[in-house]
This record gives sequence, C-alpha cells and structure tokens, in this order.
Amino acid sequence: MTLLCGIDIGGTKIAIGLGDREGNILAQDRILVDPDKSAQELLAEVSLRLGELASGRSFSGVGVGVPGPLDTEAGLILNAVNLPGWADLPIRDILQDSLKVPVLIENDANAAAMGEFLFGAGRGVRDMVYVTVSTGIGGGVITDGKLLRGVRGSAGEVGHMTILPDGPLCNCGNHGCFEALASGTAIARRAREGLEKGEKSSLRGQKISTFSISNAVRAGDPFARRIWEESIFYLACGIGNIIAVLAPQRIVIGGGVANVGDLLFLPLREELKKRVCVAPLEKIEVVPAKNVNDAGLLGALAVACGVSS
Amino acid sequence: MTLLCGIDIGGTKIAIGLGDREGNILAQDRILVDPDKSAQELLAEVSLRLGELASGRSFSGVGVGVPGPLDTEAGLILNAVNLPGWADLPIRDILQDSLKVPVLIENDANAAAMGEFLFGAGRGVRDMVYVTVSTGIGGGVITDGKLLRGVRGSAGEVGHMTILPDGPLCNCGNHGCFEALASGTAIARRAREGLEKGEKSSLRGQKISTFSISNAVRAGDPFARRIWEESIFYLACGIGNIIAVLAPQRIVIGGGVANVGDLLFLPLREELKKRVCVAPLEKIEVVPAKNVNDAGLLGALAVACGVSS
Repeated sequence: MTLLCGIDIGGTKIAIGLGDREGNILAQDRILVDPDKSAQELLAEVSLRLGELASGRSFSGVGVGVPGPLDTEAGLILNAVNLPGWADLPIRDILQDSLKVPVLIENDANAAAMGEFLFGAGRGVRDMVYVTVSTGIGGGVITDGKLLRGVRGSAGEVGHMTILPDGPLCNCGNHGCFEALASGTAIARRAREGLEKGEKSSLRGQKISTFSISNAVRAGDPFARRIWEESIFYLACGIGNIIAVLAPQRIVIGGGVANVGDLLFLPLREELKKRVCVAPLEKIEVVPAKNVNDAGLLGALAVACGVSS
Repeated sequence: MTLLCGIDIGGTKIAIGLGDREGNILAQDRILVDPDKSAQELLAEVSLRLGELASGRSFSGVGVGVPGPLDTEAGLILNAVNLPGWADLPIRDILQDSLKVPVLIENDANAAAMGEFLFGAGRGVRDMVYVTVSTGIGGGVITDGKLLRGVRGSAGEVGHMTILPDGPLCNCGNHGCFEALASGTAIARRAREGLEKGEKSSLRGQKISTFSISNAVRAGDPFARRIWEESIFYLACGIGNIIAVLAPQRIVIGGGVANVGDLLFLPLREELKKRVCVAPLEKIEVVPAKNVNDAGLLGALAVACGVSS
C-alpha cells in the first residue's frame, strides 16, 4: 500500500499523520507551536517526528495545509496572521529537501474542501462547495472534480461576501461580511449584545458559545431562539449567494457550528427555500461535513493525493 | 472554412447568423417574434431563413441561446417568462431534424459568457466571470476554460445574490438582490425616487435611464452624482462577492450599463479596492465586454463551437 503524509500547520499546533488514498489515517502525532522556536526549527521537528511516525515505512508524497494566502507555485505562505515568522519561507522546498519526497502545499480551507471532497461528505459529486463556519467563515470550491484555486489561491473566501453593507465590522475592515454575521464568533456576539441590553435568558451567567446558545434553544429559551433564527437567516443569505453564483450539486458545511446538527440544518434548508429563486434547490444538497474534528489532517492528506501516484 | 450558425432567441426577436470559429459573423438576419405565431411556426421560419442565409453553403453546427432555465440535456426551455408557449418544447430536436446538423442550446447569459470568453474580452485567461448589467443582472462563470453550468444550468445567476436583506423588492420575490440594487432598472428607479422626493436635478423632466443619469453626472449634476456613487457602491458589493467566491483572473462586464465606460469602471475599481480584502485585486482585471451590442448572436455562435469539429 502506498502511504501518504499530511501536515496541518495551525497557529497553536502542527498535526502530522500518515494515511492512505482512501482517507484512513494510520498513525498521527502533534507538535505544539512554541512561539520561541523559529519556523525552521519547527519544520525540522516536523521532519524528525514524521520519520519516527513512519518508522521505516516509506511514503510517496506529503500534503501541507497552512493558514493564509499562499503562493502555491513558489510553495510559500504570503501572509500568515497567526504564524509570524512563517511568511515568505519556502516551506515546500525545506520539507522536500529533508523528506526527499514531493511536497504540495495548500491553504487550510482549500485543503479541508479537498478532504471532504475525496474522503467525506463530498463523495459522489463533481461540483461541491465546502463552507467552514467556526471562529470565522472560510471555504473551498470544487468544480468538475478539481479544486478551484482562483488568483493566488484566494477562491472560496466566502466569509468575505458582503451581505449587509451597514452591518457589523469584520476583521477584514469591511462591514457586514458573511463572517461578521454568521460565524460562531458572530452568533456569540449577537447573544452577548442582547444580554448586555438586558434581555432575559437562561444564557445569563453562562459562557456564551454556539454550543450553549443551541442548548438554550433546545431548552425553549425565547431569547436564544431569536438569536438563533437571526443567525440562520444570515447563514442562508450567504449560502444562498454561493448557490446563486455556482449552483453546486452539494454544499458541505463544516466547522464547529455544523456540529449542532438538525437544529441548524433543518431551519437553514427552510430559509434557503425562501431565498433561492432560480436554482432548483431540491437538486442541491446542503449537508454537514463528515470530518469536522480532523478536517485539517484529512485535508492535508487529500492535498498529498495530488502528488502524482 | 467551416461555417457555424448562431440563433439567439429573445422575447421580441430572433437573431440568426452564420459565422466562423473566430467569432466573425459573415451573414445575419432577424425575425420578429409575432405573438400570434406558435413556437413551432417560428422555429420553422428560423430554419427557412437560415437556409436562405446560407444560400448553399453548409454549416457544421448550430448554437442556440434562449432565455430562462433550461434542461440542456433534453434540449428544452423549462420556464420562459418572456416566451410563453416555448416551455417544454424540444427546441434542440426540432431544429436538428429540420437542419440536419448537431444543435446545442444554452441559456442566454451563459451563451454570452462563452461569447466573451472565446471571441471577446475573456480571451487569454482560463477563469473568467461574465456579468451583464442591463434591465436585470445575469452572468456566466468560466472555470479552467469551460462553462460552469451548475445544477440545471443555473450557475452564474449572480443577480440574485442578497447584498442588502432589507433592500428593495426584487422580481424574484426576495429583497435586496444585487439586481434590485445595481441593474440599469435599479439605477433608474433610485433616481426617480429621489426626484419624487423633490431632489433638485437637471434630470427632472428627462427620460430617466443609465444613459441620461451618466450624462448628468458628466455635466456636474450633484444629485445624479449621488445616485451614481450609490449605484457603484452596490455594484462593487456584488462584484466583490463574486471575487470572494471565485477570485477569477478576469471579470467582464457587459450589458447596456457597461457602455458608460470609464465613468463606471474607474470608480468601480476604486470601490473594489476598499471592498476586496483577501484576493489580490491587482491581479484581477475588471473590464468592459467587447461584444455588448451583439452579445446574443456571438454567444450563440460560441455555443455552436461546442459542436465537435
């Protein structure tokens, strides 16, 4: 069996794994990102640990998922907000030199999209959009069975569609981005602002998160329900916009918010029925991601599949 | 030289043309859509006129552009608001039977996108989005050199992205669609509403259109300038959303509004600089369509190029 390696580089940890072309992870390890270590030192540690993990077994390719915009051709990160010191570093070439196998790098949302497409909820279609709803909102677009990179790999940045121009400020500097209205962070902020205004709710005094809000909705809390419905409305605006542009066969929603399950997906589909006017919605599936918890590593493994076999 | 035929079916007229694979139209004719005639009668007339136009020359394929959602596989229109009586009619097979050559049909916005891609402002790139800003807003998406159809050919319906959920009512029944905020119709309505509220302007008493408004802007009319800037803002929201999702190499803007030229494109590019935060805007061209006036016929001719040569 041909083994492949996935490396998922995040702001706090680096996950490494060995797996096969069917998305089975056979061995994995993780390295905490010590801010006192340089990127080069961390990459050397990745190579070392990977050697230990493989323990003599060979692997034919490596896929690396990294945050931020990349120059995939040059194999480097252009601007990594959460990884100072990594910008402009030739990650691909450094790993290729030390591991002696072909290395491909991809931004993490695109990698996760490929992971769902090859190993998860995207199987069986040719056109798919992956949307991750978490701290922010990101995504990846698959058309005709291939990742659509767009200029400098920046396709799929669906979190920065404007859906309410006078809406809340987004981290990007604009107002009313999809991410600023429907991410986990935005949902929690909406609840906190309501509570600050004196709304009565069982949420008062609790840690406010998508998880606690969804539990309060299930328990019948009217304020939590209002927050939830408003959030679903904006989620449907954003997903509806993706449908207007691409009309994909399937939209796969990942990220922590997707873990909420039917409480999210049932009203979301109802809201989409109101909003999608041209595309035949009954032919477009909106489904939860399969690999929510190991999206990063499976994404990196999917990227590794791009190494010619 | 291999000749191809394009047929552009609209609500009021049907344009027919003979051309080559380079987008040169060598002969053309048009038929007014007589509402008293059946679709079958009109199609028979199309075949007859096409025979006259060809006058003995053979053509190897026919492309047909039609309004509305299609079943391209079955070769019929599913729902043509402006062409009652054409729905569910097997247009492709009827024409194929009478013309004895392969026929392909495509919806008109997708056809126009292919026309710009093959013969116009889309030449030289692999990823392009065509946006037509006219009575409504439509479009077509080209990825990796191919038209992205989406489910039932409904990709590229960018006019129905929500960009202001509590905005003006759209023909589709939703509020705040891109089309309801930035189409030629929407720009004119914005001006009319201002005039009705008593705004002072040289536009008063004139026929209100994108053309007259843009002329008033050029002449220094402050009200017209405000209307124009607001319209450009929403145009940038919609184009910016397309960039967020696809980050194409080039966006080609067609339709009557694009005829305005630099008065549109210069401020639009400035506004996009404010709105596009992730994709490298300097690598994304936003350009006017080349074939504004014969977009329909050239689109149909481009569809004909899909007939295997």
